[in-house]
Amino acid sequence: MNITSFDYLRMKSLFFSILIGVALSISAAAQENRMIEFPVPPRAPGQTDVLQLACEPLDTVRIAFIGLGMRGSDAVARYMNIEGVKVVALCDVDFWKVDECQKILLKSGRPAAASYTKPTDWQTVCSRNDVDLVYVCTHWQLHTPIAVYAMQHGKHVAVEVPAALTVEDCWKLVNTAEVTRRHCMMLENCCYDFFEMATLNMAQKGFFGEVMHCEAAYIHDLRWLQFDEKNGYWDMWRLRYNTSHTGNPYPTHGLGPVCQILNIHRGDKMDYLVSISTSQVGMTAYAKEKFGENSPQSLVDYKLGDMNTTLIRTARGKTIMLQHDITSPRPYNRIHMVSGTKAFAQKYPVQGIAMEPNAHSFVKREIIDSLLNVYEHPFAREIGEQARKVGGHGGMDFIMDYRLIYCLRHGLPLDEDVYDAAEWSCITELSEKSVLNGSAPVQIPDFTRGTWDKLKGLEFKK
Amino acid sequence: MNITSFDYLRMKSLFFSILIGVALSISAAAQENRMIEFPVPPRAPGQTDVLQLACEPLDTVRIAFIGLGMRGSDAVARYMNIEGVKVVALCDVDFWKVDECQKILLKSGRPAAASYTKPTDWQTVCSRNDVDLVYVCTHWQLHTPIAVYAMQHGKHVAVEVPAALTVEDCWKLVNTAEVTRRHCMMLENCCYDFFEMATLNMAQKGFFGEVMHCEAAYIHDLRWLQFDEKNGYWDMWRLRYNTSHTGNPYPTHGLGPVCQILNIHRGDKMDYLVSISTSQVGMTAYAKEKFGENSPQSLVDYKLGDMNTTLIRTARGKTIMLQHDITSPRPYNRIHMVSGTKAFAQKYPVQGIAMEPNAHSFVKREIIDSLLNVYEHPFAREIGEQARKVGGHGGMDFIMDYRLIYCLRHGLPLDEDVYDAAEWSCITELSEKSVLNGSAPVQIPDFTRGTWDKLKGLEFKK
Repeated sequence: MNITSFDYLRMKSLFFSILIGVALSISAAAQENRMIEFPVPPRAPGQTDVLQLACEPLDTVRIAFIGLGMRGSDAVARYMNIEGVKVVALCDVDFWKVDECQKILLKSGRPAAASYTKPTDWQTVCSRNDVDLVYVCTHWQLHTPIAVYAMQHGKHVAVEVPAALTVEDCWKLVNTAEVTRRHCMMLENCCYDFFEMATLNMAQKGFFGEVMHCEAAYIHDLRWLQFDEKNGYWDMWRLRYNTSHTGNPYPTHGLGPVCQILNIHRGDKMDYLVSISTSQVGMTAYAKEKFGENSPQSLVDYKLGDMNTTLIRTARGKTIMLQHDITSPRPYNRIHMVSGTKAFAQKYPVQGIAMEPNAHSFVKREIIDSLLNVYEHPFAREIGEQARKVGGHGGMDFIMDYRLIYCLRHGLPLDEDVYDAAEWSCITELSEKSVLNGSAPVQIPDFTRGTWDKLKGLEFKK
Repeated sequence: MNITSFDYLRMKSLFFSILIGVALSISAAAQENRMIEFPVPPRAPGQTDVLQLACEPLDTVRIAFIGLGMRGSDAVARYMNIEGVKVVALCDVDFWKVDECQKILLKSGRPAAASYTKPTDWQTVCSRNDVDLVYVCTHWQLHTPIAVYAMQHGKHVAVEVPAALTVEDCWKLVNTAEVTRRHCMMLENCCYDFFEMATLNMAQKGFFGEVMHCEAAYIHDLRWLQFDEKNGYWDMWRLRYNTSHTGNPYPTHGLGPVCQILNIHRGDKMDYLVSISTSQVGMTAYAKEKFGENSPQSLVDYKLGDMNTTLIRTARGKTIMLQHDITSPRPYNRIHMVSGTKAFAQKYPVQGIAMEPNAHSFVKREIIDSLLNVYEHPFAREIGEQARKVGGHGGMDFIMDYRLIYCLRHGLPLDEDVYDAAEWSCITELSEKSVLNGSAPVQIPDFTRGTWDKLKGLEFKK
């Protein structure tokens, strides 16, 4: 081996220049890697977005309901008040729930639907030729599998919240909708609540000036429902999930309405989040009190913190404060706060509206009522009275169903599209990721893959 | 130069092992550096903590007031109602403010104090031999320099909020207090407000069960005060500061009371934070409307976002949500929310208390009043009536002053110590640091340097 001094010096010089380069990249890596990234998978060739997707109008919408627990059976009952629909299939692993829903049809003077009670029957249901819409109200973990399978079998799908529990599943929903050109709507009923719709209308009409900050939450003491084996969630699925997960597992009820106000993927997009959770104390305290200090329920290491708070920043510099707490003894609260450069509104704990030039106090109740009347959303004006009679969380569920069927029958784009479903649901995994990494910032994927600025604002089609 | 193959191979091997090591440390750095650290400087030899610092009792507390603007002149007036004090010096660069305060003394039948109006006179004041307490109400940037100088000259110091604007200045306060064994109290008046004190009492008596989450804020539309050259802040110092800073510059009013409830540095400590700000839109919009589209005020690139939200996690797994917004048109709000495993309370926008077994709604107003009566804080019971008469933000300022003088006269530890001042103030720089680094988590220094768990709970001495 023949090595010259020159080789040696060259190597020495190379060595040190690499070391310097590496040192610089350490500091760059340290800088960059503060953000946890979720890479956006490229579209398959030929695949395009489904923004404003319009499908063939349906004279009668033939519906299959899968999952007939709390939400599912209520939905079947509500659909008895909607024109142009036919219930063709009812599916649940509890046969008595199917029977109860058949009774609803019977009482309404409608023909019986096909009954399905086997665990894999949802696949058979999705394969039927006489179904236009699969309406999914199962436990969380089946939402995406059924939605994807249904679309793959040519069906539109309406799926309970959250539509997916992981970012990967969000992409499955988006990709399947883009490939099959079928609708995938997440049933975010809170977008149709009266105050939320009025504030959306106010925002769109410029009442708030520029909306800078919103707050939203799902704060609902569900301890008894989580721990009641008999009358609570089927197979205790919710407690089971919360035993092994932290972060915010149920973000959409609060988030949906404020994302609509902020025009998410219609001119703006959620860019990144940070998330923080308290320790878990409340569930164990409840279990100890209810079942005894050394009961099996008291000894489980539940992962879900009592309170989770997540902060989201958008590409246009707006922020969202989002919370989840189903354990603490406190009144129900979705917050729904909208703060702009000209005015301010919040729904919980009490409705309050403040506006220029004297925003230092809330306007009087009469003025709130007048404003809510002036800015009443067209949907509320059109169908609000009937909705309040039919019920379903005060009427919002009915307006949601009414609009879904209206759009399907008229071949219109739906109010809530698959990107909404993915954006609002992905917070589940992303918030958990942040919490598990010391609240590090986590990038929120752009599920439109670059076209979040194509639509100019949210528009409901008529 | 004589180089052997062995040298070459050795160097090659060294080269690659370093490269591998460096690659590993890149990934480690990427992992670790998600948290921005603020190293804790070691104590000088012989220096010890000032937890529960008690000093010589003072029969009469001789006070020098420095800074006689909004807060300072109000303070002088309040002290006319407190026994055992003597105002010996009045200092402000605006001579007429000094004159106004001399009139207050005169009207109260007290001897005139020495007047100081030169920019460096605060040093002369701190050097006087007949001063026990320097009471600092200047603009933010002078708080730490005066406080440090005063302690170095053997004086106790009470300083307006925030006591410091940087972590470095927080350490200066702590180190100077530890070296000089003088009191340094930040004048966090909101800790003495009636609802805050009642909830502190409730927390200490176990009413909330285990407190898991608190919320706090300074939400106060200060646009006119910031932009009014004549009647606003002296030399427009606040707008000046907010032109070049983001994050939460004014965290202590909301944070103080909830830190007391959470026993910060008395059994728990704030561990880290993440912080997020909206873009700045509101100040510019206001300036355009008030001074014209192309006015100088409209063309400034103000750094302060309209809304800042900061999330703090404690070593014991509790969380604090803290906000700052002085730009948006909305009602004044410090939130002051306390959420525990047994009960819940919040002060803004309306007082609400909920408790087991039926926490699904707030208790009625009569019950709130009864609870606030049952849990009325001893200070409020003792001096509340007089405080409400004297005034000062509804009475809380007077209770604060009363307690400060009481403790000094009796040689007792103060209610709020220098660690409180540092902990509550350091959020200013730490939140800005997080915002400027894409909301990365930032470690909160332990200003007690390891003894945050020594005291078992907050105790006010009598």
